[in-house]
Amino acid sequence: MRVLVTGGAGFLGSHLCDRLVADGHRVVCVDNLSTGRRRNVAHLEPREGFTFVEADVAEPLPVDGPFEAVYHLASPVSTTDHFARPIATLRTGAEGTRRCLDLAAACGATFLLASTSEVYGDPEVHPQVETYPGRVDPVGPRSAYNEAKRFAEALTMAYGRERGVEVHIARIFNTYGPRMRPDDGRVIVNFIIQTLAGQPVTVHGDGKQTRSFCYVSDMVEALVRLAGADGVEGPVNLGNPEEVTMADLAREVVRLAGSSSPIAHVPPREDDPRRRRPDVERARRLLGWEARVSRGEGLAATIDYYRREEPPR
Amino acid sequence: MRVLVTGGAGFLGSHLCDRLVADGHRVVCVDNLSTGRRRNVAHLEPREGFTFVEADVAEPLPVDGPFEAVYHLASPVSTTDHFARPIATLRTGAEGTRRCLDLAAACGATFLLASTSEVYGDPEVHPQVETYPGRVDPVGPRSAYNEAKRFAEALTMAYGRERGVEVHIARIFNTYGPRMRPDDGRVIVNFIIQTLAGQPVTVHGDGKQTRSFCYVSDMVEALVRLAGADGVEGPVNLGNPEEVTMADLAREVVRLAGSSSPIAHVPPREDDPRRRRPDVERARRLLGWEARVSRGEGLAATIDYYRREEPPR
Repeated sequence: MRVLVTGGAGFLGSHLCDRLVADGHRVVCVDNLSTGRRRNVAHLEPREGFTFVEADVAEPLPVDGPFEAVYHLASPVSTTDHFARPIATLRTGAEGTRRCLDLAAACGATFLLASTSEVYGDPEVHPQVETYPGRVDPVGPRSAYNEAKRFAEALTMAYGRERGVEVHIARIFNTYGPRMRPDDGRVIVNFIIQTLAGQPVTVHGDGKQTRSFCYVSDMVEALVRLAGADGVEGPVNLGNPEEVTMADLAREVVRLAGSSSPIAHVPPREDDPRRRRPDVERARRLLGWEARVSRGEGLAATIDYYRREEPPR
Repeated sequence: MRVLVTGGAGFLGSHLCDRLVADGHRVVCVDNLSTGRRRNVAHLEPREGFTFVEADVAEPLPVDGPFEAVYHLASPVSTTDHFARPIATLRTGAEGTRRCLDLAAACGATFLLASTSEVYGDPEVHPQVETYPGRVDPVGPRSAYNEAKRFAEALTMAYGRERGVEVHIARIFNTYGPRMRPDDGRVIVNFIIQTLAGQPVTVHGDGKQTRSFCYVSDMVEALVRLAGADGVEGPVNLGNPEEVTMADLAREVVRLAGSSSPIAHVPPREDDPRRRRPDVERARRLLGWEARVSRGEGLAATIDYYRREEPPR
């Protein structure tokens, strides 16, 4: 089938393109390269089933249907990126999502929104279930990304209800793996780059805040299953529920890299959630999916990628 | 000064236009008349300082600057309206707000967003203060309006932070008065129309859910003060903190109208908040404002308007 992937040159998007091309689909990848990188899809460009289109999803889309599926991943994702560009982040979430939904409606395509655990904000319940409404201050310093995604979810549901589009919402928890941008500020890539550069590994605050991390191949499998799950309505949490503290993660990266970098504590970040962990029961039940790659395996593969492909200068 | 009022033919917008024209400003009123009504501003149209432009704020705006102030009120507001048109509601909140902010940024105008107590969703604290992040399910049945407004707030803050626009956010709690659309489903207009028609007054559920209602002249005063309050950042609750149960309100309307309509209980509404009451301390402190019109006075004036101007057929 013919599939549109927006944000297809990003970290997660490029792995999704790999998978869809490998499955024999014709893939049109749209990316404005504001945070995505052409190098992430360079190996796909010679392939017959793959087309790269440089375009901003918030503007009229220079692609023609029909598509059978639209995977809408385009958005600045890392804190570094959306802090620097709140207006663009909001516009992509709203106008970009609207244009992609209009296209899906016009084609009769299935639509999958890549949403985020950030819709839960700084939650007071753990783990988070899909019915938890979240705790997000709409005017807080993180609000551009969080509200952009909450808006995108509401719009996606509205197209499902009002226009009858087959819609799916993936609430993606932290995901990692090769091709994360080295400078995008995500914690795992930071730790790896610092470790490989022989620098101190910087942990914000006391390092006791926890996150859970899903390896990218697991996440791609989940997205493909969700897009194909006809009739599954409403958001589905996708992530690896295993929690780790930032301090433990830093030590693990240093150990797996065979490094001797010290851990350095730096001031906590404003508005940084203390914990974030998905309840993935709904994904397990409806998609028969759960994360399979252990953190040790995933981190080793990721460290290996940065050592070989993007060594720190 | 020259002022733009979007949604200026709506209930609140038309009263704001009245006030601004009376204050000697040149007012451009933009409204697509999807929920606003031309009759609300018909008396202003002959006035030299007033211009009506029929346009949708989600499309390129057919108005030229410069403006010194932009009051952005355009949005479906009543539950009836946004339930029926979730996609348009979301688009107005996002794309309409973005276009108005772009205009304000281009002119160096002060921007005031008419936001809403609905950003708090179904709150678990009473009264609500501006720092309360709210409890809104982004995919719930009321989410189109609530998330549209939360998004508009986030975008407004982003223009303040990233582009230096002087921005103000009014979190408007229930407001009532003449010119509410008789069919828009708001509780006070429903009660008045039913009473004047001699029909039973319908109360949802047990009638113990409370609301607080601000008379429109008080709200207009608050908006004008807020727009002129240089340096007041972040949202400000505007409303009348006096709570009343729906059952008591129904009895009050019947009594003030001199009617003998009975009260009829009908099934509760899905996702209907139990309580909603503003903490208006911030408005009192920063604007020297509080609601002055008693519910008795306001209801009597409103009943009088519907009896004279829009009697039920």
